[in-house]
Amino acid sequence: MTPSITPNATVANPLFDQKASSEVDVLIIGAGPAGLMAAACLARYGVHNVRIVDKRATKIFTGQADGLNPRSLEVLQALGIGTQVIAEANELGEICFWNPNETGRINRTARIPDTIPEISRYRQSTVHQGRIERMLLDTIASWSSAPIGDESTQSRKTPITVERAVCPDLITLPSSTASALSDSPQDRVVVRLRHLSEAEAKPAQFSPLAPDGLFRSNMFEDDALDAAPKDLPQKEVLEEVHCRYVIGADGARSWTRGAVGLKLEGESSDFFWGVVDGVPATDFPDIRMRCAIHSAESGSMMVIPREKDLVRLYIQIPQPRKGQRPNRADVTPEKLMAAANSIIAPYTINIPKIEWFTCYEIGQRLADKWQKFNRVFIAGDACHTHSPKAGQGMNTSMADTFNLSWKIAHVLQGKAHPKILDTYEIERAQVAAELIEFDQKFAALFSGKPAKDVLDESGISLQEFQQTMEKGNQFASGTSVDYQPSALVAKRGSPHQGVENKPELAEKLSVGPRLYSHQVVCLADARPYHIADLAPADGKWRLLIFGGDITQYSGCKGRLEKLAQFLGESPQSPIKKYTPPGQETDSVIDTITILASPRVSLEPDAFHTVLRPIKGKHGFRSYQKIFTDDQSYHLGHGHAYQKYGIDPKVGCVVLVRPDQYVSLVTDMSDHAGIAAFFEEFMLPRNTTSALVPQMAQIAI
Amino acid sequence: MTPSITPNATVANPLFDQKASSEVDVLIIGAGPAGLMAAACLARYGVHNVRIVDKRATKIFTGQADGLNPRSLEVLQALGIGTQVIAEANELGEICFWNPNETGRINRTARIPDTIPEISRYRQSTVHQGRIERMLLDTIASWSSAPIGDESTQSRKTPITVERAVCPDLITLPSSTASALSDSPQDRVVVRLRHLSEAEAKPAQFSPLAPDGLFRSNMFEDDALDAAPKDLPQKEVLEEVHCRYVIGADGARSWTRGAVGLKLEGESSDFFWGVVDGVPATDFPDIRMRCAIHSAESGSMMVIPREKDLVRLYIQIPQPRKGQRPNRADVTPEKLMAAANSIIAPYTINIPKIEWFTCYEIGQRLADKWQKFNRVFIAGDACHTHSPKAGQGMNTSMADTFNLSWKIAHVLQGKAHPKILDTYEIERAQVAAELIEFDQKFAALFSGKPAKDVLDESGISLQEFQQTMEKGNQFASGTSVDYQPSALVAKRGSPHQGVENKPELAEKLSVGPRLYSHQVVCLADARPYHIADLAPADGKWRLLIFGGDITQYSGCKGRLEKLAQFLGESPQSPIKKYTPPGQETDSVIDTITILASPRVSLEPDAFHTVLRPIKGKHGFRSYQKIFTDDQSYHLGHGHAYQKYGIDPKVGCVVLVRPDQYVSLVTDMSDHAGIAAFFEEFMLPRNTTSALVPQMAQIAI
Repeated sequence: MTPSITPNATVANPLFDQKASSEVDVLIIGAGPAGLMAAACLARYGVHNVRIVDKRATKIFTGQADGLNPRSLEVLQALGIGTQVIAEANELGEICFWNPNETGRINRTARIPDTIPEISRYRQSTVHQGRIERMLLDTIASWSSAPIGDESTQSRKTPITVERAVCPDLITLPSSTASALSDSPQDRVVVRLRHLSEAEAKPAQFSPLAPDGLFRSNMFEDDALDAAPKDLPQKEVLEEVHCRYVIGADGARSWTRGAVGLKLEGESSDFFWGVVDGVPATDFPDIRMRCAIHSAESGSMMVIPREKDLVRLYIQIPQPRKGQRPNRADVTPEKLMAAANSIIAPYTINIPKIEWFTCYEIGQRLADKWQKFNRVFIAGDACHTHSPKAGQGMNTSMADTFNLSWKIAHVLQGKAHPKILDTYEIERAQVAAELIEFDQKFAALFSGKPAKDVLDESGISLQEFQQTMEKGNQFASGTSVDYQPSALVAKRGSPHQGVENKPELAEKLSVGPRLYSHQVVCLADARPYHIADLAPADGKWRLLIFGGDITQYSGCKGRLEKLAQFLGESPQSPIKKYTPPGQETDSVIDTITILASPRVSLEPDAFHTVLRPIKGKHGFRSYQKIFTDDQSYHLGHGHAYQKYGIDPKVGCVVLVRPDQYVSLVTDMSDHAGIAAFFEEFMLPRNTTSALVPQMAQIAI
Repeated sequence: MTPSITPNATVANPLFDQKASSEVDVLIIGAGPAGLMAAACLARYGVHNVRIVDKRATKIFTGQADGLNPRSLEVLQALGIGTQVIAEANELGEICFWNPNETGRINRTARIPDTIPEISRYRQSTVHQGRIERMLLDTIASWSSAPIGDESTQSRKTPITVERAVCPDLITLPSSTASALSDSPQDRVVVRLRHLSEAEAKPAQFSPLAPDGLFRSNMFEDDALDAAPKDLPQKEVLEEVHCRYVIGADGARSWTRGAVGLKLEGESSDFFWGVVDGVPATDFPDIRMRCAIHSAESGSMMVIPREKDLVRLYIQIPQPRKGQRPNRADVTPEKLMAAANSIIAPYTINIPKIEWFTCYEIGQRLADKWQKFNRVFIAGDACHTHSPKAGQGMNTSMADTFNLSWKIAHVLQGKAHPKILDTYEIERAQVAAELIEFDQKFAALFSGKPAKDVLDESGISLQEFQQTMEKGNQFASGTSVDYQPSALVAKRGSPHQGVENKPELAEKLSVGPRLYSHQVVCLADARPYHIADLAPADGKWRLLIFGGDITQYSGCKGRLEKLAQFLGESPQSPIKKYTPPGQETDSVIDTITILASPRVSLEPDAFHTVLRPIKGKHGFRSYQKIFTDDQSYHLGHGHAYQKYGIDPKVGCVVLVRPDQYVSLVTDMSDHAGIAAFFEEFMLPRNTTSALVPQMAQIAI
């Protein structure tokens, strides 16, 4: 299914109505978590010439993913919806391990915290994927309808909405990799979109009893229900979209992936599992805990307590015979619940109303490449598939496009060189590979039969299972991601010249991972703030200036003053170089000054204006800019310096990417290093802002 | 304006269209914070035959009250909207006092925390009254449209909505106090409602520059813009409503109050103030703090930072001459801002866009009585008026009807004897009297000119002002309210027989105030919960069973088992006596068991079912019922026993009212006392639930 390379397809193809041809900056294919996260971020960053299409006629209301890891909650909070998600979600408290005792009866053998303490300010939670999608849709609508007072966004008459029952069926790529650095019209990606009938866009349902997800199941591939429609009937509504960028977030059976010649590689196992959602009536005491249950002879089960008293059960389905798959007729709610009752015996469980069910064969697959010409990107399940029990699908998918979209926005807005797009695959493919590796081990141990004793070599060690799950819990939190050296991550091996990362200045804060959030107190209003809330996902870089204790140490005071002078006045200042004329001082690079002096020893107005910019024609001041690491009245002391390992006598500068990952730690006086970091990939702005004003000007 | 006592007014009065006559359980007059809180609570408690009318054609969008004290946030959280309110509100950090120095220049002389630490889990916050009203309206709509799964509420086809541009103009009372105990039709209160034209219902505006609240101002009473229309034109739409109860929440110039012959008593001062809302451009460094500024010669000002960068300024208006009021022409945004600049000099402040402004004369007035025949109640500004600077108006008004509405619901639902309605005036009039007393002192000190030196007797002491404000801060938090002994508060002086309050069992938890909320950990899901979140405003009583450390002390274990047996099995059990047949075990009195044993030493299913009831025909279990005072994985240890002063070897029982106020502390074995407490006012339920099934049966 290699794409035909036919430039000027609009003119050449007589099938098209000339009117149905349009240009977009970004076309997003697929409105699941990955696609919606991309659209939400782009809307938030002010990229509004965006379309998002989905072949399904309606959004989902039940089933599918339900786990949100702490990092996803951090990301959602950065988009302004964390509080709302948390209010609706079920926080998971504890993981309980239930294993057979000598008599074969299951009993609780261990408990561990569901979220590793201190790993994030949020905890692993569960809420229906449809609710997350709803909130992302609201975010898209809200940010793409020209918010008042944010001058960095373009106005748009109508908000971006998902175009449903719309499906791509032809893609035409530019001629070569070199086109990635060109903005000329012939280097657009051309996608032909087909508007489906309602019947085509509605997934088939197989169970008369409850909504099911079998149409997506990888256990019954021969049905191929999710494949793209192949026949092109007469009188089809077709249109052609010329795209600067395409994001294929169209799921495990991604059409985009195949259309641009990328492959998903990997294997499936012989392990089969069913999934059932509903409110249970049960005497099992740990039904509100996440439970990993290994029965002696009846297979395994995972219990995931969810919002609104719901519980999700992952229930192992016996394999009829080696090499064989279960029949579809064996995947019914009744048979799944019967299997659950065998596993959980002597307890019983009944779900009077099944909300949703499905089944899957465990398998792990990874895309060989994540982009074509840095013009078409794939993300989410299109890049990585694995078993759902570790709750990583929705999380990793949203993280993919959270990583990608600020980079695309930076390029489109003329802020950065397109080479930063290389970092998408570099950064995300490694995370996906780690996930696949973990899932292979975890799934085999979960699906295996417990060893009867140490001599039982065919059985799995329950101790090893527990250790794997405990270790996997760190990974599954999403907080241990550590991006590689690149133009965006200035650690050993990065391409920067004249930039030296100095990890010793912040010993507990690494370059590569996301910034851990601690509490600081604002000078202007005496209130405690989480640093992460000062660095929302608004597309800005953050320069965290840990100025030290300027009251006690005159060296700190001097270094802060000199840094502020550099940032505010020098022509080499990245704030000066990269902020387009006429835009706010903090619109590209935002400073957050965090001191180590007692709050009452500091006056909020005694700082250089670059650290507390005056905004707009009326002269409004910025108030949430200068902070101190001090006691708050009501929420204690954040001890940020101590927890980051920063010496209050020395201080440091921490540069944080728009997606909250740490790019650089250096000293207060390293003005040249800060400038050089940005020079590696940012484009100086001497003109007023417009989309892609300079991309074509770059020497290749 | 004494009401005419004409029973059967429907038949007698030829002016009425017979069709426009209806019956309601509760008619609420006025849709400000007090009226909406009443409607929200009644909707939540399942009283759905309710109407709420307001003479204004539209709800307010700017101005008016903006302060929410910690207790109001607790109440809003109990109604399920606390998180949303907090997300929108501006939390106040610090109060700064700015006073003239020897040269007459203002400078910051002191700082105190805005909310006294440890007083509540919430902090004093500001958000526009219109937003609170919006969220209360959403709450009303949501609860009055027959929520799924809550069998205690009656179904209702359409949600309760505010009927705007509707105004009462005639009230007919029952013939005597004795009628308060009767449910016969002739003892209804009959209110005639007039449907206004748009012109009549729209408040006049006086400023061409910005929305103003002058139509409500008490400085220009001769305009009487807020008084009820007096003439009754031809072709008027009139209707007559027969009401079991009427709540007059119709503001400082309450029509209801006058119509039933109650009076507002008190005096006005010669202090005049203006109010301006907007986003300021200023070099005053503490503009995001609450500031009390006394200038040397130019009067005083209060700064209140609000949501969305807004600030409210309370600006003193000079009195032209003793005994004289300022002219209306002197109350313009320009003149108010000029006064603000004089006070704040040498700093300057400019508000480019005034959102709203108004003015008022400081005065304190209190209603002589709060009810008529326990059938018509007044609440909010109808009962108490005072200066707005202490931020008590909206808070106290909402607290009034939060107190009243569960009592009305209890009577209407046949749960309790109507005599509990006596406690409304007893409890709330005292709070209002304390507020008036505080405000008199505070307002005089704020409006007074600072003393030049200790010999300047005409000037006020700035030290005394600060002390008054600090002391008032406790009161203003709303958390120090301590209700008097009554049928609902079993402390010395209450009418109960055989009930003995035992404060020594919980030394830091008093009978009379609201229950302070601490964190406990749930056995079933290992998560931390705030006790207040387990006791939402759902109309239920809560029996908090502090069972002690049942793992270590067999005495505790035995007492808990005996108490559970009593509650679950004895015919004397209040749960048995007062829960209507067919309703859930916890629908009237809900138990929350809080133990002092290590969590992992306890099994969640090892308790009597009365403590963890099984619900519905499918046998769903209750999971958030049994807790322990232990470390949580992520949010520390609540130390609830220690903080309440309860001995883990002994334990106790704490009985909490539906509005979260503490009724009784007694020992685990005092089964008779617990029973006797409820016997004082509750009505045994031997029939299925219906509104007012037994009120008429009570022997008077």
